[in-house]
Amino acid sequence: MKLASLRDGSRDGKLVVVNDRLTYCTEATTIAPTLQAALDDWQHAAPKLQLLAESLSHEAVPMIRFHEHEALSPLPRAFQWADGSAYVNHVELVRKARGATMPDSFWTEPLMYQGGSDTFLAPRDPIRMKDEAWGIDLEGEIAVITGDVPMGIGAEEARDCILLVVLVNDVSLRGLIPAELGKGFGFFQSKPSSAFSPVAVTPAALGDAWKGGKLHLPLHVELNGEPFGRANGGVDMTFDFGRLIAHAARTRKLSAGTIIGSGTVSNKLDGGPGKPVSEGGVGYSCIAEQRVVETLKDGEAKTPFLRFGDTVRIEMPDTEGHSIFGAIEQTVEQAT
Amino acid sequence: MKLASLRDGSRDGKLVVVNDRLTYCTEATTIAPTLQAALDDWQHAAPKLQLLAESLSHEAVPMIRFHEHEALSPLPRAFQWADGSAYVNHVELVRKARGATMPDSFWTEPLMYQGGSDTFLAPRDPIRMKDEAWGIDLEGEIAVITGDVPMGIGAEEARDCILLVVLVNDVSLRGLIPAELGKGFGFFQSKPSSAFSPVAVTPAALGDAWKGGKLHLPLHVELNGEPFGRANGGVDMTFDFGRLIAHAARTRKLSAGTIIGSGTVSNKLDGGPGKPVSEGGVGYSCIAEQRVVETLKDGEAKTPFLRFGDTVRIEMPDTEGHSIFGAIEQTVEQAT
Repeated sequence: MKLASLRDGSRDGKLVVVNDRLTYCTEATTIAPTLQAALDDWQHAAPKLQLLAESLSHEAVPMIRFHEHEALSPLPRAFQWADGSAYVNHVELVRKARGATMPDSFWTEPLMYQGGSDTFLAPRDPIRMKDEAWGIDLEGEIAVITGDVPMGIGAEEARDCILLVVLVNDVSLRGLIPAELGKGFGFFQSKPSSAFSPVAVTPAALGDAWKGGKLHLPLHVELNGEPFGRANGGVDMTFDFGRLIAHAARTRKLSAGTIIGSGTVSNKLDGGPGKPVSEGGVGYSCIAEQRVVETLKDGEAKTPFLRFGDTVRIEMPDTEGHSIFGAIEQTVEQAT
Repeated sequence: MKLASLRDGSRDGKLVVVNDRLTYCTEATTIAPTLQAALDDWQHAAPKLQLLAESLSHEAVPMIRFHEHEALSPLPRAFQWADGSAYVNHVELVRKARGATMPDSFWTEPLMYQGGSDTFLAPRDPIRMKDEAWGIDLEGEIAVITGDVPMGIGAEEARDCILLVVLVNDVSLRGLIPAELGKGFGFFQSKPSSAFSPVAVTPAALGDAWKGGKLHLPLHVELNGEPFGRANGGVDMTFDFGRLIAHAARTRKLSAGTIIGSGTVSNKLDGGPGKPVSEGGVGYSCIAEQRVVETLKDGEAKTPFLRFGDTVRIEMPDTEGHSIFGAIEQTVEQAT
């Protein structure tokens, strides 16, 4: 089952069920007006939404064309956005860039930050920033949306709390990060609003690609139309989503509609620092990683962070090449 | 105007208008079903709620007894909870306890962390934790609830975005903080669910006590029935709420219903480290501060963090002794 929230002038959008190929959708508002409302009452809403999805697949309900650019983020605002760093290779590389070493505990205990969740960008919204010097970067990620999660849940059990899977562009302001982290309280200004894929997908609808709390497919990242990243979500993910949820729920319960991110998808192939897609590697899911690799190799970073006018596209095709979640596609613009 | 969300089995509670003395209330659900719904459409909802409050004060509408223990937190879940450290004295003291110095920039640039906002405790809910060794502490704070805030707003202008004022118990797990902050991504497990006062109050209804984006009244904190803190919200607040909101909105807009906290209310009277209420001082709004002062004075902390069975009460009386926001009163219990 695939769900989306269409732009209708409201803050939370209008819930629709989308067909597998993302060509048509049908209104689901008689079941639940918004995705959050469906998540709040998932036990009752999910079977009805599933039936509607089946009817849609048989063209047995009123159908409207689905246009990705009419979709908001599936949850245009959420009660929680917590982002892990499950691909520890990414953490190690980015720390190297700052000249910081990484404690061994990072391989055994997830790193996670509390993100802002009140104003997510739509998947085709521009990224509007005041200043290029803030070091605007993309971060291509996978995330899950949970149901209610009790405090103290175990990692295995937590996998059953995963209701939906989405893609994320976790926009980061690299220029603001060192000073902000230096103050000791984590990210705030350095993590502006993120954007999510047009469509949220149930784990069941991901078929064999969803296994062990991980999504085993390459994440396609394009920068100004050129292939930039092809890292596989199932490779080098040290902590699966069940483990990340359990980490978040250690000292408090989590409410339905909580979004837990994977952190930047990153593969450490052949034990090396990775290669650009143009050189036959899997590339990167953020610019910071490429810059670190360049610095390690040539002594200096040559790829700039995002500039006004640059375009980022994040998408995940299935094994037949069909887009599973639709595309996040955002242009960087100067805020006035 | 005073607003509350009554427990009715739903996730967001039922919106009521409460009279000034907190003795009676009247349902406001025909105006907006929930406080979030009212905040989403404040321009239209506020005048109607205001009229209802006036009718209630004239006993001209159906009245029901208001019982604080039937109230949820005004926003039982919110889209954003961002907590500042506006009382820099608190930051300096707590850092001293860890043997960490405080950069001078902390006096000119607010410190703020992104908190979890999906599962707030009701004001009379127990604080359930697995382990006393986590170092369970209260933090008595003041917070504001904003309307929509545009990105890049100035501090003065931001004061006009403050729609409601509340009290907070920002529960902290002192034992988990050093390791978590050491990882560099800020608080997560060390900041479990917070609880808010039964009632949210408009700045206008605070009268002279609300001035310059600060609340100029003592915050009463009791520990097991004994006076523990009487720090004044208007004293030594280095950054007013307008400044805190502007800090949060530097790189992204904030959505209606955003809650911005002051951090632990803390006064640095006479330039000294403060004295307990029992010795004629204003005391503390968290146990950690008292422990630091003890350590500085006697070489060791003697006041323990909260133990199972301990009770915390946070309240703010007006100049005539009437409770403005109702009381947060929570007992610490062992989670099973």
